[in-house]
Amino acid sequence: MTISKGPQAFPRVEYLRRLSLVKSEMARRGVEALVVSDQHNITYLTGYTARSAYVPQGLVVSSKEEEPAFILRRMDGPAAIHQCFMNRDKIIPYPEELIAHPELDGYDAVIDHLQAAGFSTRCIGIEQYNLSTLTVEKFRKRLGEARIVDLTKVVAWIRLVKSDLEIEVMREAGAIADAAIARAAEVIRPGVREADACAEIASVLIRGVNGKPGTQLEPITLCATPRTGTCHITWAEDIFRKGSQVNLEVAGSRHGYSTALMRTYSIGAPFDRLQNVHEIQLEGLEASLHAVRPGATCSDVANTFYRAIEKRGLKKESRCGYAQGIGWTEPTASLRDGDLTVLVPNMTFHLMLGNWPDEDFGYVISETVRVTETGVEVLTNSPRKIFEIS
Amino acid sequence: MTISKGPQAFPRVEYLRRLSLVKSEMARRGVEALVVSDQHNITYLTGYTARSAYVPQGLVVSSKEEEPAFILRRMDGPAAIHQCFMNRDKIIPYPEELIAHPELDGYDAVIDHLQAAGFSTRCIGIEQYNLSTLTVEKFRKRLGEARIVDLTKVVAWIRLVKSDLEIEVMREAGAIADAAIARAAEVIRPGVREADACAEIASVLIRGVNGKPGTQLEPITLCATPRTGTCHITWAEDIFRKGSQVNLEVAGSRHGYSTALMRTYSIGAPFDRLQNVHEIQLEGLEASLHAVRPGATCSDVANTFYRAIEKRGLKKESRCGYAQGIGWTEPTASLRDGDLTVLVPNMTFHLMLGNWPDEDFGYVISETVRVTETGVEVLTNSPRKIFEIS
Repeated sequence: MTISKGPQAFPRVEYLRRLSLVKSEMARRGVEALVVSDQHNITYLTGYTARSAYVPQGLVVSSKEEEPAFILRRMDGPAAIHQCFMNRDKIIPYPEELIAHPELDGYDAVIDHLQAAGFSTRCIGIEQYNLSTLTVEKFRKRLGEARIVDLTKVVAWIRLVKSDLEIEVMREAGAIADAAIARAAEVIRPGVREADACAEIASVLIRGVNGKPGTQLEPITLCATPRTGTCHITWAEDIFRKGSQVNLEVAGSRHGYSTALMRTYSIGAPFDRLQNVHEIQLEGLEASLHAVRPGATCSDVANTFYRAIEKRGLKKESRCGYAQGIGWTEPTASLRDGDLTVLVPNMTFHLMLGNWPDEDFGYVISETVRVTETGVEVLTNSPRKIFEIS
Repeated sequence: MTISKGPQAFPRVEYLRRLSLVKSEMARRGVEALVVSDQHNITYLTGYTARSAYVPQGLVVSSKEEEPAFILRRMDGPAAIHQCFMNRDKIIPYPEELIAHPELDGYDAVIDHLQAAGFSTRCIGIEQYNLSTLTVEKFRKRLGEARIVDLTKVVAWIRLVKSDLEIEVMREAGAIADAAIARAAEVIRPGVREADACAEIASVLIRGVNGKPGTQLEPITLCATPRTGTCHITWAEDIFRKGSQVNLEVAGSRHGYSTALMRTYSIGAPFDRLQNVHEIQLEGLEASLHAVRPGATCSDVANTFYRAIEKRGLKKESRCGYAQGIGWTEPTASLRDGDLTVLVPNMTFHLMLGNWPDEDFGYVISETVRVTETGVEVLTNSPRKIFEIS
């Protein structure tokens, strides 16, 4: 009648380490209970990866308790018992009645829990930026005697620096991304439907490599001629043609962690502009990889890339990447001019050098990287070339 | 240098019809400009399906203009020109500088547009429930002389009733879901990894059927023994075994529209409880399908199901489904006790009868249905049985 605890992606001590970092920050700010509502932060602190964030749920980290309490929909309780590192008494399901209820929702259950746990007159942190105005108003109204402070991104900043265990998981995801990039070179052919190629790529991303499956499928971005100037569409109802260019972005996924990778393909020899842009971007990629080291800033890395390609007459308007981990893009450090976040070992970034200079022309290359003690480790291993399809 | 307009999923007249419904509602409420921020509402009103909603964007529907204006990230402008039905001058890109900017974001560009378009002192509608407190405050502060009113779910309620063109697209998605359910019966075998079966299922969902590919991959939910009491996890790092039960939920996808479908599989003959629950649930499904007709309420349909299974000693705690269309679950009508939404022709629902009575046991069956002039049309065509794997 009870569900078993599933295999855990990380040992208990790893979750307790993460929680202790959060609790230190809570203590520094005088916060006694933190309501974590961002689904990726919940994954980080518990191991929970089920797809239930489309209804309200909240993880309450208490300064007084070792394990957090997870308040979520009744229906999702068994998955939480199965996946989370905590003991089952920390999984607190709220009734199905609250789903699509005209006045109440799951945040009422979170507030009920805070009240029952004695936080009604204490200092409570919330992740305000992830919550709607109506929810924030509900917290303020129903917890009128508490002091409510915004701790948006506090957990996200903590997870920017990975543990060695997390890095290992991201390496596993990187190996899956490499395999998908290689498979694409086998299945992109003139006359083949974009959808059929993507089915093969998705298959690799799910099956994984080295006995380790992808644990979910992240979106595949495939922008082929005449759509190489777009960045975020997926396969179209079209076929590949001789002379087509294909820009591909994939991510391997392990236990919620994404390792992303972009490469460009050409059916036949690359046309001159494509070849030229590739060579310039490659120089920029290598220069920016050399710029990644502890003590440098995100801005330094981005500007190294911009300078390298501008010397050769190319510009890139968009940023050069972002922190990467759970949920693909992390909402903290950004490889952009002016971001003065200082790199420290085990930060991970998607060094995303896709460049879309024209409405009808773009080129993509990227690496997911880790800051090491002395420089950089690239977490993937795909050749830095235009994949030429004969 | 310019990107071409792509093939459109719907004719221009269909988008204008949808917009006219929105504008009527705006007029009724005295709203002169509506800022649509929900990505599925944007798809509904424009045809745009690129994956860019993780950064701010807004569609401004003006009571005075035929076509809406789409303010989005520079990088995503070409995809919008390619996919949206509007003329290119209605695609208004904001600079990459606003991405991860310390003070500004894309909503500042939306507000700039509202000011430039003369709405600074007018009545402006926003979808408040989809916006963070900080964004709502920004609208109120920067548009201090405007009257800002909340139109959350106004567009969502309009899209609850589909056109015949939308129904046809959902039928195409339903055929894909059927094919995936059938493929699962071929690939679920003892000793096979859950991931490998899901790779095959995903492949069908992407390749599609009848020459019509799936246009994106919706998440696959696969909960196998000992996890059949969970509802929202995906494949585990496990294999199927003799005697295993597998609960599968998939959705075919066409142009942003999902048609979902759930079926249960048994490797070997179903165990007694499973067979018994299946028979009861099937009676409930048939009874509730008979309850779907214009004039009935959502509550009627749900209670017909509850009554049918309770007569046989089974209970279901969760609701019996929800409106379905763009983005899978629509946030409006819900097949739950007390939801007095009256059914009208061309409403579509996922009649979701998954039932998880124990932590370690659940059973799933569902249909995606359309309300017709006289009753119900089921948009899928899979046998209503436990798929027995020999």
